Amino acid sequence: MTREWLRTLAHKADLRERAGLRRELRPRDPGDHLIDLAGNDYLGLSRHPDVLSASAKALFEYGLGAAGSRLVRGSTAAHAELEDALAGWLGVPSALVFSSGYLANLGAVRALVQPRTLIVSDAHNHASLIDGIRATGAETVVTPHADVAAVDAALAAHPGRPALVVTESVFSVDGDLADLPALHTAARRHGALLLVDDAHATGLLGPAGAGGVAAAGLAGEPDVIVTATLSKAFGAAGGVVAGPAPLRAHLVDTGRTFIFDTALPPAVAAGAHAALTVIRGAAGEALRAELTTRAATASARLRAADLDATVPAGGVISVTAPSPQAAVEWAAACRDRGVAVGCFRPPSTPDSRARLRLTVNAGIPAGDFAHALDVVVASAPER
Amino acid sequence: MTREWLRTLAHKADLRERAGLRRELRPRDPGDHLIDLAGNDYLGLSRHPDVLSASAKALFEYGLGAAGSRLVRGSTAAHAELEDALAGWLGVPSALVFSSGYLANLGAVRALVQPRTLIVSDAHNHASLIDGIRATGAETVVTPHADVAAVDAALAAHPGRPALVVTESVFSVDGDLADLPALHTAARRHGALLLVDDAHATGLLGPAGAGGVAAAGLAGEPDVIVTATLSKAFGAAGGVVAGPAPLRAHLVDTGRTFIFDTALPPAVAAGAHAALTVIRGAAGEALRAELTTRAATASARLRAADLDATVPAGGVISVTAPSPQAAVEWAAACRDRGVAVGCFRPPSTPDSRARLRLTVNAGIPAGDFAHALDVVVASAPER
Repeated sequence: MTREWLRTLAHKADLRERAGLRRELRPRDPGDHLIDLAGNDYLGLSRHPDVLSASAKALFEYGLGAAGSRLVRGSTAAHAELEDALAGWLGVPSALVFSSGYLANLGAVRALVQPRTLIVSDAHNHASLIDGIRATGAETVVTPHADVAAVDAALAAHPGRPALVVTESVFSVDGDLADLPALHTAARRHGALLLVDDAHATGLLGPAGAGGVAAAGLAGEPDVIVTATLSKAFGAAGGVVAGPAPLRAHLVDTGRTFIFDTALPPAVAAGAHAALTVIRGAAGEALRAELTTRAATASARLRAADLDATVPAGGVISVTAPSPQAAVEWAAACRDRGVAVGCFRPPSTPDSRARLRLTVNAGIPAGDFAHALDVVVASAPER
Repeated sequence: MTREWLRTLAHKADLRERAGLRRELRPRDPGDHLIDLAGNDYLGLSRHPDVLSASAKALFEYGLGAAGSRLVRGSTAAHAELEDALAGWLGVPSALVFSSGYLANLGAVRALVQPRTLIVSDAHNHASLIDGIRATGAETVVTPHADVAAVDAALAAHPGRPALVVTESVFSVDGDLADLPALHTAARRHGALLLVDDAHATGLLGPAGAGGVAAAGLAGEPDVIVTATLSKAFGAAGGVVAGPAPLRAHLVDTGRTFIFDTALPPAVAAGAHAALTVIRGAAGEALRAELTTRAATASARLRAADLDATVPAGGVISVTAPSPQAAVEWAAACRDRGVAVGCFRPPSTPDSRARLRLTVNAGIPAGDFAHALDVVVASAPER
């Protein structure tokens, strides 16, 4: 039976191979000189001196690991101070930090579902939201991407039930922005809660970079719950759930992915806090302005070269590739010329399309960024 | 409807309050002088100088965050070297690091379930295993804790089906050790795979601390899959799935909690690798010997005081409390006298019992450890 299992795994790997869907880990070393259009370190803060020094200080003060779950031994002043600062910045009563955005999303969705809850979920939502939704077992309507009318119709078709609308703000695959004011209007009309995964917008959009929800004027609304990650614009790691104080208390008391997980290392929490200070300040403002300029320039440059590139709301640009195999070859050609790009293929894209995903990084030299775009264009498949 | 939702949350909080089930985060600062019988830093490696210096070096080389998922930008040499070292140490063909043990367990369970798979799961298994099992939707038999005959019977009752037996090695709540050789014999007899969460045994049991599976002589068996965490004896953070190479390839290609999650920070991976070097060496051997001695002494001391304490297989001792409320008060009394202990209450215990959970830490001074035990005994409820 074991041999049969291993044969099954090998067979499945073979099928993926033939479909051009094998994936390869490419460990980089510190001397890696690729220009990064693939990562999510949008503002370059993972290497900001304030982030490094705050993280190193906490490392030597607390040790490396948190030594336990948040409730048993893992909560430190670094976690508490980060949560207070996040709540103030996001304009919400309370915030709770998880060890990853994935676990934050699993915890948030679960906490927002009661018996009979209807979930309405955008077709482009992230895997962690989808897994969270599936885990609840709640009846779910998946609406076409960015279709507010469909959300409204789904809610209208199930009157009198508790309901939860789930969306990203800036979507991770194509980089477009949900119409959050319209979604909130629809949700409120039907008495539904609105959960927004702001992972790709916090740090980039809104006043002081407080994210897509803040940019939409929805910060602090009692029927809006925000999740975000500290691993993108923050240049750190971890996730956060932000919203009404009773939700935080509920997660602390009952959230399985919070209670039964080792806390984020204090040095990571301290580094994320230092990143937040940069994000909120004048330096963050300047980085956001640079990112906005680069994003617009990059999209225009790609479209001028007849590439099917999205217009980014934040730092994500998606460029259609003719096939999964062409996407792989395109990305490899970029890498050979010194540029790292993301290569997204089905089944990890929400539609059937393969694409390159380019991320705009305000932290790399402007000349490198412009050169990298030239490489992407020059490496494009025949068209 | 929103008001109704917040009222529901408040009402549930009130019910938990009355049942003595509210939880409070107690952030510690670096000047915290509690003697730690609560955390899982069993060997004190979170503050080992080699761990701190390796982590700090990687922090300044790579920056804080990994900047992306493992497949997009997050894999570094620190991850690859750690995985190679883990596989060699565990005696398995391959290992894959996740950002947490929780996500490693979710990924492992999912990868091991095919259509028609029967899961047989120990009643004391960790929340992350249970969530992973539920997410598959597979038919599951929950067997009484540590009941190999029941596992055998469950497998025998479903002949000809793919099956997966799921257990911990050292259980997190009571600290007892599963009979892994017998479980493996039963699993193999019926052609089932055996998934062992070795989180509380890696670093503590077996040759070179390679864990409960290695201690049972099962390292490298093709029908045994090991998960573990880097957040306990390693003093770091993260999780690992170890087993046959085709399983690793399957997880890299299809594991949602691997693909769609930001990589563990390189500085954490590097620190965990340094911890592994200590664990495998003479210093690790000495720390394990000290831990074994302390565990035996502590259990004997508690039992001599007429407390219902378990005999630890690794570093976890559970001591029964008369009620949830008594457990909370006992833990508070310990804390007031300078000792941190774990307080486990239903519903986060697998049975109806409340208890203190004491963890043995070989890294704290021997005098402090002995004093802490005196405090636990002196603070015990009337009996």
